[in-house]
Amino acid sequence: MANEDQGFVVWLTGLSGAGKSTLAEKLALYYREKGKLVEHLDGDVIRGIFPAGFSRPEREEHLRRIGFVASLLERNQVIVIASFISPYRESRRDVRRMCGRFIEVYVNASLEECERSDAKGLYQRARSGEIKNFTGIDDPYEAPENPEIVVRTQGVTVERSFSELCDKLSRLKV
Amino acid sequence: MANEDQGFVVWLTGLSGAGKSTLAEKLALYYREKGKLVEHLDGDVIRGIFPAGFSRPEREEHLRRIGFVASLLERNQVIVIASFISPYRESRRDVRRMCGRFIEVYVNASLEECERSDAKGLYQRARSGEIKNFTGIDDPYEAPENPEIVVRTQGVTVERSFSELCDKLSRLKV
Repeated sequence: MANEDQGFVVWLTGLSGAGKSTLAEKLALYYREKGKLVEHLDGDVIRGIFPAGFSRPEREEHLRRIGFVASLLERNQVIVIASFISPYRESRRDVRRMCGRFIEVYVNASLEECERSDAKGLYQRARSGEIKNFTGIDDPYEAPENPEIVVRTQGVTVERSFSELCDKLSRLKV
Repeated sequence: MANEDQGFVVWLTGLSGAGKSTLAEKLALYYREKGKLVEHLDGDVIRGIFPAGFSRPEREEHLRRIGFVASLLERNQVIVIASFISPYRESRRDVRRMCGRFIEVYVNASLEECERSDAKGLYQRARSGEIKNFTGIDDPYEAPENPEIVVRTQGVTVERSFSELCDKLSRLKV
């Protein structure tokens, strides 16, 4: 018997270091504990399997692939949690079009804050020129204009951001 | 509530024109009519979304991507029917390793027969040199040595081949 649940896609976008992966992992666990089928697609993990460059056309193609994978899972009743910087509005719009129920979550932390913490040391490497096309440094981040959800991760605990995300999701009935 | 069914992967390999896509479409319909969640991943369709070249490394990378997508679907309880020439033994072994329950189906028709019918005119274009790296012409097809299932499609009707495939699958309890 097929699963009666409907799939949907929760798409977390935001700067490197804003806290997308952390929130996404917690969210995947949250749905899994409710007995749902969940797949977490994470930028860093997926790039290990689908290698891709960081130029604009390469990022766009990469996100189209992810969008396709998300849409396949979603139409088979899986909840997809996607955490990708996904810096371009047009790419996010393309991915939205490929999916059915699409919830864009803007994980909002300022560039200053992300760069200040710099847990992976990537901003430093981008500033020194060692990494090119780094979002926020020498490649733009186009913040969502009308996302379903905004979660602020700056100056609050992870627990608090996560609780805000869950509240907002439950108001959307998912 | 999560679907109680187990996913699995039916991987059809064989020459261009051997009848993989036709069998795969019928098989997807067969499982769908039983109320199962099914996804058909087809070489020609997927290449429209994940463009890839036809050199050996490009084909290998392409198949790893497909293997990853198949494994994601399978672990979310979807039956995956994959129809790809997938000419290299090593690539098929890699994909098998990525998946849980993997059933390799060798769709067996001779090169002579496939080239004689040449429904898409591809063999002619390969012979004339217009298409390079064409399996069976200037790129090898490494036939499976120990597939779970062999289906002959040469000199028999599609209905007969399909019925043979279903019989053999049901003997494997899927």
